[in-house]
Formats: sequence, structure tokens, C-alpha cells
Amino acid sequence: MRYIALIAAVLVISSCPAEAKCGYEACPASKPNMINVHLVPHSHDDVGWLKTVDQYYYGAKNNIQHAGVQYILDSVIVELWKNPDRRFIQVETAFFWKWFQEQSDFVKEKVKELVNAGRLEFIGGAWSMNDEAAVHYQSVIDQFSLGLKLLNDTFGSCARPRVGWQIDPFGHSREMASIFAQMGYSGEFFARMDYVEKSKRLDDVAMEMIWQSSESLADSDIFTGLLYRHYSAPPGFCFDLLCSDEPIIDSKSYDNNVKARVDDFISYVKKMSNSFRATHIMVPMGDDFQYEDAEINFKNMDKLIKYVNARQVEGSKVNVFYSTPSCYLNELHQMQLTWPVKKLDFFPYSSDAHSYWTGYFTSRPTQKRFERDGNHLLQTVKQLSAFAKLISQEQTEDLDALRQVMGIMQHHDAITGTEKQAVARDYDRLLTDAMVDAQDNARDALRVLTNLTSGQFDSCLELNISVCAFTKDSANNVVVTLFNPLAHPSTQFVRVPAKQEEYLVTDEKGHAVPSELVPVPWQVLAIQHRSNDTQHELVFKASVDKLASYYIRVLPTPKTLRRFQTVHSMQQQKSKIEPKDEADELVVQNSQIKLIFVKSTGHLKTVEMNGVSENIEQNFAIYKGALGDNSASEKRSSGAYIFRPDGDITVLSDKIEYTVYDGVQVKEVHQQVNEWISQVIRIYEGVNRVEFEWLVGPIPIEDNNGKEIVTRFKSGIASNGVFYTDSNGREMIKRERNKREYFTPDMSESVSGNYYPVTARISLEDEHKRLALLNDRAQGGSSLADGQLELMLHRRLLRDDAFGVGEALNETQYGTGLIARGKVYLILNEAENKPSVAERLAQQEIHLPYWKFFSSSNTASVVKPLSIPDFSDFPQSVNLLTLEPYSTTEFLVRVENFMDHNEGHTVSFNIRHIFDALNGKDIRETTLDGNMDLADMKRFKFQHDGSKPNAVEYISATYEPLLATEASDASKFSVTLNPMQIRTFIITWQ
Amino acid sequence: MRYIALIAAVLVISSCPAEAKCGYEACPASKPNMINVHLVPHSHDDVGWLKTVDQYYYGAKNNIQHAGVQYILDSVIVELWKNPDRRFIQVETAFFWKWFQEQSDFVKEKVKELVNAGRLEFIGGAWSMNDEAAVHYQSVIDQFSLGLKLLNDTFGSCARPRVGWQIDPFGHSREMASIFAQMGYSGEFFARMDYVEKSKRLDDVAMEMIWQSSESLADSDIFTGLLYRHYSAPPGFCFDLLCSDEPIIDSKSYDNNVKARVDDFISYVKKMSNSFRATHIMVPMGDDFQYEDAEINFKNMDKLIKYVNARQVEGSKVNVFYSTPSCYLNELHQMQLTWPVKKLDFFPYSSDAHSYWTGYFTSRPTQKRFERDGNHLLQTVKQLSAFAKLISQEQTEDLDALRQVMGIMQHHDAITGTEKQAVARDYDRLLTDAMVDAQDNARDALRVLTNLTSGQFDSCLELNISVCAFTKDSANNVVVTLFNPLAHPSTQFVRVPAKQEEYLVTDEKGHAVPSELVPVPWQVLAIQHRSNDTQHELVFKASVDKLASYYIRVLPTPKTLRRFQTVHSMQQQKSKIEPKDEADELVVQNSQIKLIFVKSTGHLKTVEMNGVSENIEQNFAIYKGALGDNSASEKRSSGAYIFRPDGDITVLSDKIEYTVYDGVQVKEVHQQVNEWISQVIRIYEGVNRVEFEWLVGPIPIEDNNGKEIVTRFKSGIASNGVFYTDSNGREMIKRERNKREYFTPDMSESVSGNYYPVTARISLEDEHKRLALLNDRAQGGSSLADGQLELMLHRRLLRDDAFGVGEALNETQYGTGLIARGKVYLILNEAENKPSVAERLAQQEIHLPYWKFFSSSNTASVVKPLSIPDFSDFPQSVNLLTLEPYSTTEFLVRVENFMDHNEGHTVSFNIRHIFDALNGKDIRETTLDGNMDLADMKRFKFQHDGSKPNAVEYISATYEPLLATEASDASKFSVTLNPMQIRTFIITWQ
Repeated sequence: MRYIALIAAVLVISSCPAEAKCGYEACPASKPNMINVHLVPHSHDDVGWLKTVDQYYYGAKNNIQHAGVQYILDSVIVELWKNPDRRFIQVETAFFWKWFQEQSDFVKEKVKELVNAGRLEFIGGAWSMNDEAAVHYQSVIDQFSLGLKLLNDTFGSCARPRVGWQIDPFGHSREMASIFAQMGYSGEFFARMDYVEKSKRLDDVAMEMIWQSSESLADSDIFTGLLYRHYSAPPGFCFDLLCSDEPIIDSKSYDNNVKARVDDFISYVKKMSNSFRATHIMVPMGDDFQYEDAEINFKNMDKLIKYVNARQVEGSKVNVFYSTPSCYLNELHQMQLTWPVKKLDFFPYSSDAHSYWTGYFTSRPTQKRFERDGNHLLQTVKQLSAFAKLISQEQTEDLDALRQVMGIMQHHDAITGTEKQAVARDYDRLLTDAMVDAQDNARDALRVLTNLTSGQFDSCLELNISVCAFTKDSANNVVVTLFNPLAHPSTQFVRVPAKQEEYLVTDEKGHAVPSELVPVPWQVLAIQHRSNDTQHELVFKASVDKLASYYIRVLPTPKTLRRFQTVHSMQQQKSKIEPKDEADELVVQNSQIKLIFVKSTGHLKTVEMNGVSENIEQNFAIYKGALGDNSASEKRSSGAYIFRPDGDITVLSDKIEYTVYDGVQVKEVHQQVNEWISQVIRIYEGVNRVEFEWLVGPIPIEDNNGKEIVTRFKSGIASNGVFYTDSNGREMIKRERNKREYFTPDMSESVSGNYYPVTARISLEDEHKRLALLNDRAQGGSSLADGQLELMLHRRLLRDDAFGVGEALNETQYGTGLIARGKVYLILNEAENKPSVAERLAQQEIHLPYWKFFSSSNTASVVKPLSIPDFSDFPQSVNLLTLEPYSTTEFLVRVENFMDHNEGHTVSFNIRHIFDALNGKDIRETTLDGNMDLADMKRFKFQHDGSKPNAVEYISATYEPLLATEASDASKFSVTLNPMQIRTFIITWQ
Repeated sequence: MRYIALIAAVLVISSCPAEAKCGYEACPASKPNMINVHLVPHSHDDVGWLKTVDQYYYGAKNNIQHAGVQYILDSVIVELWKNPDRRFIQVETAFFWKWFQEQSDFVKEKVKELVNAGRLEFIGGAWSMNDEAAVHYQSVIDQFSLGLKLLNDTFGSCARPRVGWQIDPFGHSREMASIFAQMGYSGEFFARMDYVEKSKRLDDVAMEMIWQSSESLADSDIFTGLLYRHYSAPPGFCFDLLCSDEPIIDSKSYDNNVKARVDDFISYVKKMSNSFRATHIMVPMGDDFQYEDAEINFKNMDKLIKYVNARQVEGSKVNVFYSTPSCYLNELHQMQLTWPVKKLDFFPYSSDAHSYWTGYFTSRPTQKRFERDGNHLLQTVKQLSAFAKLISQEQTEDLDALRQVMGIMQHHDAITGTEKQAVARDYDRLLTDAMVDAQDNARDALRVLTNLTSGQFDSCLELNISVCAFTKDSANNVVVTLFNPLAHPSTQFVRVPAKQEEYLVTDEKGHAVPSELVPVPWQVLAIQHRSNDTQHELVFKASVDKLASYYIRVLPTPKTLRRFQTVHSMQQQKSKIEPKDEADELVVQNSQIKLIFVKSTGHLKTVEMNGVSENIEQNFAIYKGALGDNSASEKRSSGAYIFRPDGDITVLSDKIEYTVYDGVQVKEVHQQVNEWISQVIRIYEGVNRVEFEWLVGPIPIEDNNGKEIVTRFKSGIASNGVFYTDSNGREMIKRERNKREYFTPDMSESVSGNYYPVTARISLEDEHKRLALLNDRAQGGSSLADGQLELMLHRRLLRDDAFGVGEALNETQYGTGLIARGKVYLILNEAENKPSVAERLAQQEIHLPYWKFFSSSNTASVVKPLSIPDFSDFPQSVNLLTLEPYSTTEFLVRVENFMDHNEGHTVSFNIRHIFDALNGKDIRETTLDGNMDLADMKRFKFQHDGSKPNAVEYISATYEPLLATEASDASKFSVTLNPMQIRTFIITWQ
């Protein structure tokens, strides 16, 4: 029974290898008029959490957590062989791929047969099971593209996942659902939802629904199912070596428990089925890192199935079998039921009255930023590699390595900051190493793409603390080569660490460009282990289509150039009480923006821009982290997951020290808030936003209080409880204070219960004015009062919040708390102007500014960029989302209309010249991930409640997918993009 | 690599199935001039300990201990398939057999192929890994016979174990070694030895030796190896799911640890090899219940082997490979080295200065006794089944069930009493049920073997508390059918529960036999849940060859028969001080024995028998159990394993209550020592030993002290520190107080360090007198002072001794401490007379007295035994050790000369009439276990230190094994038995 044809099964399948009955055809038969129970064997394998990725893979450090993914896969494959009825779903391609590569050809072949028979089914299929709050959509798409491509290349279409499986992320974004829809997935399942909502949905039989995943996109409906009991097996039925539930004992034994176990199981599924609409229910059989010894699991499930179904002869109406989520979904689709509709998203997630999982929106802010740097370099290297057609094995491997690490970083215990400290360090190490290696590709590409064939093209990875080896000496002149990852040419101010000298900056034509030298704030200079060779930053204005170089030369002393800074400083006056002047105002302004500060306190008071003036106070403020023992809901600690402030916020509104640097190109107000918080408020000439560069840390804990630091903007805008936050950097979602879609939340935690993830933008408005904040990494944010916005910048806490990580979020480095530094951008505008293309472009530029490459240049030779496609005729609302080598003969190109249906409109443009510039032979359009021809997409259409289903329907592409060759008429290359639409093409080149 | 030919291997072997290269031919190749490291994958699977047998098998109650043997075997078999180099040894046939029977034919076939290729090797092979202290040799032989037979029947000769693997028992008996030698094993390995001895052996390079396992038997040498580091993998190399040692990480990874792991391993084996003589060392890779997910173990061992051997190209002299203990032993044998000699045994075992494992010699005395009852019935049923030729499936299964349970009972955590309480209850339940079922066989047999074809032939299993349903009413007359399991006819006094009435007992010829009625001691009557229908025991004298019936009839009232008891009672005088008479003596005597008691105190004072008189005081005494926290050696608690008294012994020598029942056939002194200790001292007319029937319990613990109760006999015999204890009920071993063979023991624990297991007999002597105590179950015993002997009867302790059982040995039942009852027999004799046949026969009679079957008898019809072979002409020193159905057409017959070389001599006798009586067709002689023709036995001969080996030598049978058919001349059936020799025959019948 158990070993059924361990070998025989192999032979049977081997003898008819082509009969791939994968997909829905391979689904198990169900029985009408019964509760059909889909048992879904699965293992939830975090790509890092308490242990590092490799520790999890190899099963090292089992004293921390017993988990070894290599064994899970070894073991599952053997068990699947033993009985053709058995199924298993594999989720995380990061682990699968590492394992698969280690296998012999023989095993690889066997795995392919399992995949082709639908016995091993990939689900989700991305590199990791990504977080949904702190991730940026670009990186999510990338990591799905990566995972699915490896599956597709290795196994073909049978391996293509058909449903999303986001069972563990701590809240769910609409953008993620939209991405699933755009990839052609028919549904997604997850397990975590606000406990009040879940309870209501159980009562309402509304656990499964149709999610309208975009307000802008057509056909964005996607089936969404909430699991009944987390993602765990029914209580008592965890047949895994990590559990101690009783095995099924079916021999002659005092302990024979078949009757009792079957009774229990039937009772469970009957109760469960009351909360679901169909005559099918799905029961996950797995949990974190389970199936390491899959024999235990499958042997007992075999018995469970056998004995539960044996009851049918006595009239039982329960039918249980091995299945997969896609097979379950297929049955629901066939049943033609109707389902409730979901419009917004599933944030914030609360697991009990005092546990809002909104801390992780901000946890580990430096890691969250570093991930963005990784993406920044990845997009840069992808494009450069494509333009330079780098296809050597090493180059491919280096690019893949960064893709893979970025896939890991999206994991819901990586970018979330909810991993152990040692694991965070490992992520940093992995990403650093991958970035260092990927730079080699950039260098190789730039040597091809410019005439500087011996340029170093080094990325300075410590620019965030104004350090770069290339600029610390004055001996060499430096070439700064700037790469613009965006489609449109732009003008940006570039900052380069520098000594306090006189510099001349020239462009490729030898023309001098405006530049200024600004001091680095002392708090940055004070960072331990920072070498203080460069105490200033040279700021110059650059204009780049895709690639351009600038030359920095030290001018010979004596100083001949104008010193560029004027200063109003109150630093020396801090102890004196200065009589207020009448207005007590300090004005800092350029041609577009006027900032008024309270002169006596140093705080911002008023902002004028875009023809609008508004009193806007900006302050830092501190929440004291709750320090409970987690023994009950009301004793929850604030921790890596949970944000739970203890008492009221402390606003740092006292008088602060400040210095004003009033340059021509840039004006900066350096504020020293306290010993560990400082800020530079900055405006650039010609740039229509105010930059707040904050530095927070080391957060002091000598008072034994954890602290969570926010930046808060108070305005008079009458926002009436409403504000907006982006969804993974794309479409905005309307938030209403203390309210939710569908249910009435438990607002016992009135602060954290109003926190939402802010990946790129948070805003509010009234009839007249709109205030928006843009950030440089994911943060938690809210509007806790009308007219007011806040973003959480940094957190340091002293106790674990008891959701498994087992450590307080007390980041320390060099024996003290971690310092975080970053930027928030403020835009004030008239409300009636919806966000313009320019405002949206600002968001793009913040996300992917120029990447700076440094080369020493002893020659005066001019660096010229060679052939790079020209994207400058793309409509303003269109961005080049991705351009990358897809194989040694293919590129993937992804374009998007980044305006939503409120802001923008449908645009068309032609990409023939891009195609030609890339030496295209043919081009085809695919689903969002790039791995399935769009023409082949056919996903399930489900009916809304109230509609009358009359057929089994599907969703396919609503337009003719682009398909052309070099011989085609240019008109074939016209691309139309509706608001928020993304289209993905594969170009084959010769 | 890992999955090498999961299938291919199958096909290769399947295509040439007959090429069985098992045995030494299947051993891995080694390399000369290197340290050859034999990695031995193994799992130590207790047949009950913290969990019951079935809980361990199924992996139930994993919260108590993570262990599931079914998965171990499932998993190991698959892993063995993956790589033909891999090896695994299977020890406990109880588990293996349960598993094997559940397998499909396909898997069974695959397992056979593994066995035939030597990849799965059976070792030990008995039903369980039996204890060596408390077991009786008869049961050890039985359980080996059982295990080996199943292996032989299933797999043939390739499955025959060649070495003993007693890795866990807590001390090692010489008799066990002798049994291994007699079964043809070439060696045995174990892991536990007095820590002082082990340390010395490591220093002396004497870890491996030749054990001269019998003083009487020729060719009893057997190689004995002590494992280097318990039976565990080297520290850091436990690649098992139960461990947290680091896996071998050999990919590109920050965690790659190949170099460090290989360095560590090589360093370990080099150090280890310094303590061993050969260029081979054996490294066990396993531990308790390991290999549940064998993939983890083998995958990492594959890597370890690969990378350690890869060092050879750099000059490393370490060669590592999968192997088995027999392959290791084969290499040692081939090397022709010489070895030190061991003569005595390995008791007591101490693991540190204060931890003598001598408590378990006595722990759970009622269980130890119940096991003897099980054996008693098993031998009875075996013989009856053979005589009646019961071969139906149910009969075979019922007999097998009792054989199997008795195999389980021998386990080193069963009969030892070192299991958890719940497990002890399960053992009781298993044994009770098996006994109840086996009685059906006895009944079936007796209905064939007598003319009472409707007799109930019920065994009364509560005779130990004088309860039997058959005798509680007076309505029916009762037939008591007595079966004598011994070869020789004997006369014994039979006791039957009875009401206080007048009875007539008659034999088969209708002759009245002497009988008397004796009161049951009040402490037995007071036992809770004992129904008190029968407050007396009817004692009558019976004489039985093999089978005889006696008739008990109640005589009609009024009482016409002589009341049979006279009484001297001091019961009513307990509070008065009685003036001593001159001698203050009370004499109780019969024609053979005279006992003198101190009249005023009730204590025994003098014994006269066999022409010898000696002052012998008998007292009960109490050790207080040490109550440490086990945090250090000197804080060890007395517990299930450890006997560690706290302070001096308390001797209960005060005046006690007593009553004398002075019958004709039997004389009894009923002593009431205190509220929970009582005793009957008893002599029977014509029986040459004094019986001390003790009852101890419930041991009070209200004073929060654990207590260990001994019976102590003080004589004036000048034993000069020397005493003798039996080895598993057979040959005696000389003990010297505070001394050991080979090493100087740490006597920090002067009491428990002198304790030895007493399975049947303990004695001492001087030039004139010999005092021997015989017991009815295994007990710890010692002679702590010259002339003095003590046996520990019962223990109740309040704290665990921290060797894993995790419970105090605080047996409770019905809310109070457990009551134990048993017998000790005293024999006093002249020293110059070595123990006579009669004295030795006494031991046999105590071990296997008549089994009593009860039938109601309303007819006066006489029960006649039919054809039963006649063993009465066996020489007096020869016993019928075993006679049992061996298959549906075979019997196994085992005969022994139970006198040792000091006591007896070589005897010859003819068994042709037995052969004929059993309808024999042919007969062949086998090794002790019955599963290998003696002619095929060829075991390794090793050379003693000092000898000059010049060839690879073997030990074979030194005489012509018996081999005959019904056509053979009767002279062919002559059997010669040297002292202590056992010979085993298989008789095929038609």
C-alpha cells in the first residue's frame, strides 16, 4: 500500500513519457453530493527568518529551528513516487532551484515526470513568497518573472503556476492581486486577515470572494480565498515530524485509533464546510518547514483518506483526496456559483485587539532602503547588459545572482524586517556581494557602450554616508558617468562626496555646469567607521537621456572660484534668547518654492509652491513602544511585527539648532533636533518638491524604553478623515480613519490601527489643496488627524512581540543603536489638479534616479555614449519598467502607463525603433511575467453575487497581442497603454 | 550522487537476483596502511521504555519522546536503495517483523534483495535487545530462537546475524556471551562498562578482548568489543533529525564547512584509533530511534565519506566507508592479532562514582515475577502444543503471541523495571492478554491429551493472591490437572485457594492424598480488590511425571475429617511481656529440617538440615533511598536504574508478631514484621529447603523517604569476602567483596557497588558449610559481611535518577504503594558437598513447578493422560529445556546438562523413544537457537595475547552433530552432554 510501485510507477510513466496530463486535466476526480475535501500537502519554507537562507536549505543550526529544505524536497519527491495519487505543491523557487541543480540527471528526469503528471505542482512560483506591504511592484514582477522563467525553461508549461499562494504575508495588497491577474493566474489564497473581518466572513460565508484588483485596469477581477485555519492541518492531524499529533494506528493494537481519528476528521470538515459556499473545501496539510520526512505525512494521510472514504459505504457524505489549490479552484469554477466582491485591500492586519501588524511597515529601515538600492542597481545593470548585449556565462550568472538576491529580499521576512538580527546581516551580505559582482557587468557594459574602454565605472556603495574612494583624494580627476534607468530624459542634481576644495564640473561637450559644495551634516560625519576624508558634497546639475558623463576637476589653488555658500546660522546662538523680530520668520526660497521657518525655533512653518500656500509644521515625534509580556492581547509588546505605542506621542517641537546654507542651485536648512535626530530641508532650483533628509539614531534606550520615531506634517487642510496611500508603489488606495471596507474594525489601538504601508506616497486633500509625501523606502504612515500626515522612520524596541522571531527589534551596530538616514519629499498642490505627469514622474525619479559610476580620468578625453535606444519619444506617462536580457538571444521589455484612470488617459506609441535598435528579429507579447504568450492566457472568470452565471467563463486578452517580426510593417509595433496598464514583450535578436 | 540509481539499482539487482553476495563476501573493501573507518549506520529502538511498544512503532505520543519505528524502516529501506554502498544494521526483530508484515509484496521483495546483497544486515536479531541481569537464560534463548527463526524463514541464511549487538543493557553477563557462542556468533559488541574499567581499557588498548564465556563449556571463547563512545556518532556528526549537528555544506555558500568537518572527523578517528589494536576502527552512526528520516543521515554521510576520502590524494591515511559490525569483525579476524582475555562478567555497571546501576536488579519486583509466570506458562503451552500437535493457525498465532510478548519482556527496559509506569502497565496488559489466549492452546491440548474432552483446564492467574474462580464456590468439585514442564517426575506440594471446609483430595486412581488447609496470611486477605471468598489454601502432595490430575471434593458437613492444623500463636499476646522460658526457643521441624525461633521475638535463629546446624538470623531491613537532585555524581538519586542508599541500613530486628501453623505436611510460621512487611516461613515434609514467603508493601512514603527493602540472612559462616551468584540462572560466578577482575573499582558506594544480579541463586561458604538462597525472580543481592547474604525485595523511590526514564520509581496502585509477594528458599549444606543434582533440581522446580489447570468436574470420571513422551529416563542432571512446535511439521527439542564442571559430569542418553513418541521422521542438530544446522556453524577463532597466531582460524562443532532419520539405527540417537552443555534438535514429524 505505502510503497505502491515505488519502481513500478516509474516504469509506467517512463514507458509513455509524452502523455503529459498536467494542469486541470490531472486533477483528482470528485464526487457530486458529497463534501469533497481537497487535502493539499504543502510546506511553507521561509527564504530566511530565524535562520539564513542557506541554514534553512541545509538544515544547519537546527537548535534555532528544526528545518532543512533540502531534505523536504528529497523526501517529498520519493514519497510522490510511491503513490500516484499523492500531490504536493512547491512554492518558493529559490529553494527549489537550489535543490534541483544539485540533483543527478536521473532525479531531474523523475521530477520532470512528476511535474508533467501534475503530481508535483508549482504554485506561487516566484523566487520567494514576497511580502505585500513593503515591496515595490517592480521588484515583485521581477521576482515572479525570475521564478517562473526557471520553471518554464526547465519543465515547460506544465510547471506554470495557476494560483497565488500568499499564505503567510501579514496583510495583502491590491497590487499583488493585480499582478497575479496580469500574470494570468486564476486566483490567490492566503491565510492572514484582520480577525474581526475573518470572523465576519466566516459568519457571512464570505471567505472566498472576487477581488477587483485595480480601479484602472480592465479584467482585473481575481478569485481570492481565505484559508479556514491558517495554513495548518486540522488540529490533531499534523502528521509531521515537527508535530506530536497521533499517527493513524490501524493494526491490531490497543492503540488502534481509526474510528476516533475518522470521527474527528469528519466532524472538522463538516464544521468547516458550513463556512464555504461550494461542496468543495480545501484543507491545507502542512506548515512551516514541514515534510522534512514526508513519509510520515503521506503514510498517515494515505490512511486517513482510506478510512474516511471507507465510511462512504455506511452513508458518509465526506469524500477526501489529495489535491492542489488549482484543482480546488477548478472545481469552484466549474460549479458556477457567485461570490462577494472585494475592492480595496487587506491592510492593516490585526490578529487580536492589540496586535496590529503595522510595525513591520517600518522595521529595519536601513535594510528596506538597501533593498531599494539593490533594485536600483539591478534595473541599471539589466538595461546596460541588454544594451551592451552581455551574454557570457559569468555575466549571466552575475546578473542572475543579483536577480536572485533581490528575489530573496522580497521575502516576507526579509524586506519586512521581521527576521532575526543574524539573518538580517546575512541578507545584507548576500545583497552586498551580489551588487559588487553585478557592478562588473555594468563596467563591462559601459566599456562597450562608451569609448572609455578602460574606465573603472565603479559604483560607490557608501554614497549614503557621503563616502567614495574615487573622490577622497584630490589627485585624480574623476569622470562621473550617469545612467538614467527611466525612459525619459531628465535633469537632476547630482551629489558627490568631496573635500573642501574648488571644483570644475564639465559635461561631455566640455561645458562647465553649475556646481556647489555643501557641508555634510555633522551627524553623518560622526558616524563611526566613516572615514572623514570627504566632509562635503559637490552638487551639480546634470541632464541625461540614458547615459552621460561629467568631469570633475580640482582647480588649482589658490582658490579662484566664487565660494558658493552663504549661511545663516544660529548655531552659535543656541544658548542666548534672541528677541524675536516682528514676524519671527526665516525665508528660504528659490524660483519655485518658498519655505518659511520660525526663526526662533528653527521649525518649518509654511510652504508655498504650485501657487498654493499652506502652513505646514514639520516635527519629529516619538512613540514609546509598549513593553508587555505578551501573555495576553493587552500585554502585547511593540516589536518587529507589531506597532503598539504606549501612551501619547511626544512631539519634539522645542526650539532646535539649525544652519542655513543658501546656495544658488541648492538651499539647505540643517536642523539639529536633538543628539540623535537631525534633518536637512532642501530645495533645488527647478525641482518642484521639498526634500526632507532625515537622520535618526542611534535611538537611545538608556531609559529602558523602546522608541518609534515618526516625521509628522501638520497642515490646515480639511481632509475629513480621508487620506491616500499607494499600493506597492502603484495605484493609490483611499483610506478612511477608523474605517474599513466590509467590516467595523476593533480600534482598541487607535494609532497603529490607522497605520498603512506607504511604499512610495501618502497624501491628503480638501477641496482646495493637496499635500503629498513621497518616500525613498517603505514605511508605515497615517493621517491621525485631519490635515496631518506622518511616516514612521525608525524603530528600536526592547522586547519581542511573540510572533516567532524571538528577538527584540533592537538593531545595534558597533555597540550602539543603528543610524538610519533617508528622504521624504513634500509636494503641495491645488486639489483640483489631479497629480500631474510631472508629479508622478517625480515618484519615478525618486525611485530610480541616475546611477552614478565613477572612473578616474587622467586624460582629458571625452566619454561618448555609443548606440543606446532612444526612448525619449515615449509618451510622458509611459515608463520603461523593465529592459533586460531574457536569454542569450532574447530581451524582455516591459512598458507601463504609470498614470491611473483618474490622472491620465490611454496613450499609443510605436516601439519599432526600439526593436531595431536592439537588433530585433521578432517580438511577441506575453503575460506580465514574460513566460507565457499573452495569446495563451486563459484564466477563470468568476461571477459576482447578484449576477446570473450561465456558463463556465474565462478571461483572455481583450486585444490582439503584439506579434511581429523584423519583416512586419512598422504599424504592427504600435503599443497602446491604458492607464496603469503594463505590457510585456520578448524581443528575439540575432 | 545522492539518488544514485534509485531505480537503476533495482533493475541491476533484479536482473541478476540469485547472485547473493551476502555475508562477509558483501563487505566493503578496505585499504592497507590506512586507518579504515567502518561507519555503521544503526538505530537503537527500545521495545518500550518511555513509550509503549506500539507507541514507539507508530510514532504516537511524540510529546513524550520523538520516535516512530515504522518510519525508520520505511525510510532506511528507501535510502539503502539509493546508493548500493550504504549499509544499515537492524537489531530488534520485534519491530522489524511488525513492519515487514505491513509491507506490500513489492517492498518485501525489495527488502529481500537488500538483505541478500548484505546492504541490510541483521545483527543481534532477537525479538528484543534483552537485558542481561534480570533475564533467565531459558527466555533469552527463546527470544533469540524466535527472532532468528522469522529472519531465517523469511530471508534465508543471508539474514543470519553473526554478531551480538548488546549496546544498551546496563552491564553484561557471561551467560549471554555463552549463548552467543552457542548460537555460532563470532563476537558481540556493547557500550556500557564500569567507567573505571573502560578508562583503564582505553589506556591499555584493551577495549576488545576474548571472553571465555563459560568455565564448563569447551570453545566458549567469543570476541567482545567495547564501543569507544557509547553507541553514538562522533560529537558533531549526528546527522539525524533528532540532532542539531551541522550538516555538511558543500556548495558555494558562506556556510560551506567541508574543510572544517573533515578536519574534525579525521582528528576524531585518529584519536580513537590510538585506543584500538587494529588498523580498523568501528564508528557507530546512530542512536536511540534515529534514522526516522534516514535521508538526512545518509545524504550527509555520503558527503562525509566522499570528502574524507578525497583527502587521500593529499596523503591522508584515513579511509572511511559504510560497513557493519560483522564486516569490521571480519577484518579484525583476518588481521590475526592477539587479544586480552576476559573471564568473569561486567557487573555491576557504574557510570560514575556514585551511580551503580544495581537498582534495576530489583526494580518492579511484581513485573519481574509476572515475567516468570509468563515463561512458566509459555514452556507449559509449548510442550502441551507439541504433545498434542496443535498446528491450526489460531493455535500457532496464540502460541506465537506469547512467545513474542515474552520476547518483549526480556527487553532491557522491560524486565529491568526501568520503563515509565504507563509502559509497565502496557507490558502487564500485553502479557496478561497473551497468557489468557495461550491458555486456550493449553485447554485444546489437554482435551486431546486427556479423556476430559470438555474440561475447562483453566489457569487461575491470581493464585499469587490465593484467588481462583474455580475454587471460590463449594458447589462444584474441582479437577486440578498438573503439568510438569521438567523432564523428571517430581513430587511437589500443591496449594489451591479454598474456603474453610473439609476437603478430600484424590489422585487419578481414586486414592486419597494427604492434604491440609492453611490460612492465607491476613496481609494477603487485606489486599484491595481481592475478593475474600477463599481465605485458606488447601495444600496437598502430588507426584507427576508430565501430566496428572487430582480431584478435590468438599466433604459433606458435619465435619468428619480431622482438623489438620495446630497452632502456636502469639498474636493475642502481643502487648504482654511474656517471661522468657529458659531457652526462649520455639522449634518448628519436620523429618528433614529443624528451625529454631527466638520465642520472645519471633525471629529465626537457627537452621538445621543436611546434617548441618547453623545460627541463621533472618531479618528484613530498609535502605533509605538517596534523594539527590542529580546535578552531580554525589547528588545522584536512587532510582529505577541506580541503587544508592542514603546512610546505614535499618534492620527490623525488634520483636514481631507471629503465628505458627504446625501441620503434618506443612509447617508455617506467619510473621507480622510491621504494618507492611510480613512473612511465612515454611517447611514441607520431604522437601529439603526452607521457604520464606515474604510480602512487602505498600511501602510507606509519608516520611518523604524512598525505601528499599531487603531480606537479610546472617550466619557464622566465615566466607571471607567471597560469595557466588548465578549468571542468568545458569553457571555460578565467584564474587569478591570490593574487588573486580582486571581493575580496581571505585567503591565510593560500598553497598550498591557490591550488589550483583541474582537471577536464581546466591551463596556463600566456608570450609564447612554452604548457605544458598534461591529466589523466584531476579533480584539484586550481595554479601556485605562475611556469612551474610541479602536480597533486595522491593523498592519505592521518590525521585528519578536522571538516566532518562524521567519518573520516580514510585509504583502505585489503587492510590497506594504496590504490594510485592514472593519466595526465597534457603538451603544449608556441608561445604564439601558441591551442590548435588537434587539441590540443582530444586532450582529447576522453583523455576518451573507444576502448572495448575482447573476444571469443574461433576462426573466422577477419571482423567487419564494419553500419549506423552516419557522423559523419566533422562539422566538426573539432564533437563528438557525446550520442547515446542517449530513449524507445522517440526518440533524443536533442547536438552541440557544443568550441572557445571565442578558439580557434575558428562552424561549420555538416548532419545530415540522421544523421537518415536513424537512421530519423528528425521532429526538434525542445530546451533542453540535452532536455526542453523550445527554442521554449518563456523565462527571466528581469535587468539589470546601471548599466543602466536599463524593462520586465520574458525570454531566449528567439535563432535559429529546428531543427524538421523526414522530408518536410522537407534544408536544414532545417543546424546552426550558435557556439564552445562545444551544441545538443540529439530525433529520433523509426519
